[in-house]
Amino acid sequence: MTDILKGKKIVIIGLGLIGGSVARGLSNKQQDVEIIGVGRNEVVLQQAQSDGAINSYSTDIKIACADADLIVIAVPSLTIESILVELKAVVTDKTVITDAASVKSEIIDAVIKTFGKMPANFVPGHPIAGSEHSGYSASSVDLYQNKKVILTPPDDTDEHAINLVTALWQALGAQVLTMTASKHDAILAATSHLPHLLAFALVDTLSQQGESEEIFRYAAGGFRDFTRIASSDPQMWHDIFMANGDAIIKVLDVYVRDLDRIRQAVLDKNSSELKATFGRAKKSRDKFLSNFENGSDLPDG
Amino acid sequence: MTDILKGKKIVIIGLGLIGGSVARGLSNKQQDVEIIGVGRNEVVLQQAQSDGAINSYSTDIKIACADADLIVIAVPSLTIESILVELKAVVTDKTVITDAASVKSEIIDAVIKTFGKMPANFVPGHPIAGSEHSGYSASSVDLYQNKKVILTPPDDTDEHAINLVTALWQALGAQVLTMTASKHDAILAATSHLPHLLAFALVDTLSQQGESEEIFRYAAGGFRDFTRIASSDPQMWHDIFMANGDAIIKVLDVYVRDLDRIRQAVLDKNSSELKATFGRAKKSRDKFLSNFENGSDLPDG
Repeated sequence: MTDILKGKKIVIIGLGLIGGSVARGLSNKQQDVEIIGVGRNEVVLQQAQSDGAINSYSTDIKIACADADLIVIAVPSLTIESILVELKAVVTDKTVITDAASVKSEIIDAVIKTFGKMPANFVPGHPIAGSEHSGYSASSVDLYQNKKVILTPPDDTDEHAINLVTALWQALGAQVLTMTASKHDAILAATSHLPHLLAFALVDTLSQQGESEEIFRYAAGGFRDFTRIASSDPQMWHDIFMANGDAIIKVLDVYVRDLDRIRQAVLDKNSSELKATFGRAKKSRDKFLSNFENGSDLPDG
Repeated sequence: MTDILKGKKIVIIGLGLIGGSVARGLSNKQQDVEIIGVGRNEVVLQQAQSDGAINSYSTDIKIACADADLIVIAVPSLTIESILVELKAVVTDKTVITDAASVKSEIIDAVIKTFGKMPANFVPGHPIAGSEHSGYSASSVDLYQNKKVILTPPDDTDEHAINLVTALWQALGAQVLTMTASKHDAILAATSHLPHLLAFALVDTLSQQGESEEIFRYAAGGFRDFTRIASSDPQMWHDIFMANGDAIIKVLDVYVRDLDRIRQAVLDKNSSELKATFGRAKKSRDKFLSNFENGSDLPDG
């Protein structure tokens, strides 16, 4: 499968956690590709080159992308539109483009806005991998190992483009899945964006309590794990909430209704309701965990 | 400090995660005490004895506690009252008693109800340590190492009793702190009970979505950590929510108001509000984490 990557010129725009990990992983596993890094920070680009993560670099998108086979856009969501404008001026029908943004409908809208329509060689993608840390220094050679990557190509996307992008992520050890952009955005709103919102809100609420110093002092391991995602990059999460607001509010409203039901059960000391809710949750979570850990959760599609 | 434990007969009632870890840790670090396990499940008691965690055991509280120096009650919160009734019939003024329940006001109420007043040798306590796993099989020799234990003795508690209970937890490697029961319950509502409520509710909400199988399939590491505490023992958490409802609802209501403010910011695409909230949260959480990890967060008191 990875044979179709052979000899390809791959440009990675943005060498942060996501792009840096693509470069490191690819250079580590696939010697027969040319990897070019594009970024604004030349210190990072030099570092990536000296790490062997990229073969060369440029701070000029147009120069770097002129004869690229595959372009991976790995910049913050709200920066993508300006990147697309630059790309439009230089890429040909042969150039396959993908991105790694967390919200797919927004990217597709931006591409259509820039290109006038969705180019057949643009494959929107999202690696379900990350960390509360960000930047090239947080990137790693195996970030995508055994992770899922969701591609959301419209129906008329070129098959070769899908295959090339699939090969890229598979070379990095990921499982590649395909679904519609709106389905992706709804699922991510539930499993990623909502939990981040709840964690950010909890830490913010507690930090504004009068005795916040003391409150945090007695917080233990459970709190640390629960709030880990509240240490994520505020700018990136700002972008996600700006982009996927509708889907997030939809699932948030369901959640708050459930929360209110549990609140009422606590108020009423409704023993059976509390036991049933906690029991259901534990059962679901244990099941999720066993699927998550044995990796048997890959659907056929 | 641990000298005052020397030669003492210590009875641990309940050999689950908490009591089992006290027994394992104590037998490992302090050879010159006699540790007696009390429980209903004789298979567990035999296992603990063959592990060397206890010197002997009994299924009869009255026999085991007759001449105990220190009794550690480590049974589920809602079982404590019946244990207290049995203890009242057998303990003397010399016997020091402590417990490990997560909600302290409720225990103090139960002790006063049973004994007619708070005995001077009863030291309510709560080790801030645990796991989403429960039972003797989840217990470990070092569960309390570098953890905090909060004691909430009323003003007229016997000083020797406080010292003995303090020595017990210190022998297990814990840092012992003292505060009022109501303050303890408010702090734990914020840092432990509320996060558990949010995690239980999230998993329950998502598991009842039409596409729940698929939703969980795409959940990643952040979700796993965020919901780890939703795998906790439903019965134990039921007990905690029954016991500490007032404090939990108080902090939950503040949280839900904050959540609604963020919801509005998402709806309004209020960029500056979102950035400010996420930025504040990350800063607070990073600060908490650095305190948590370097262990420098021990107050003088």
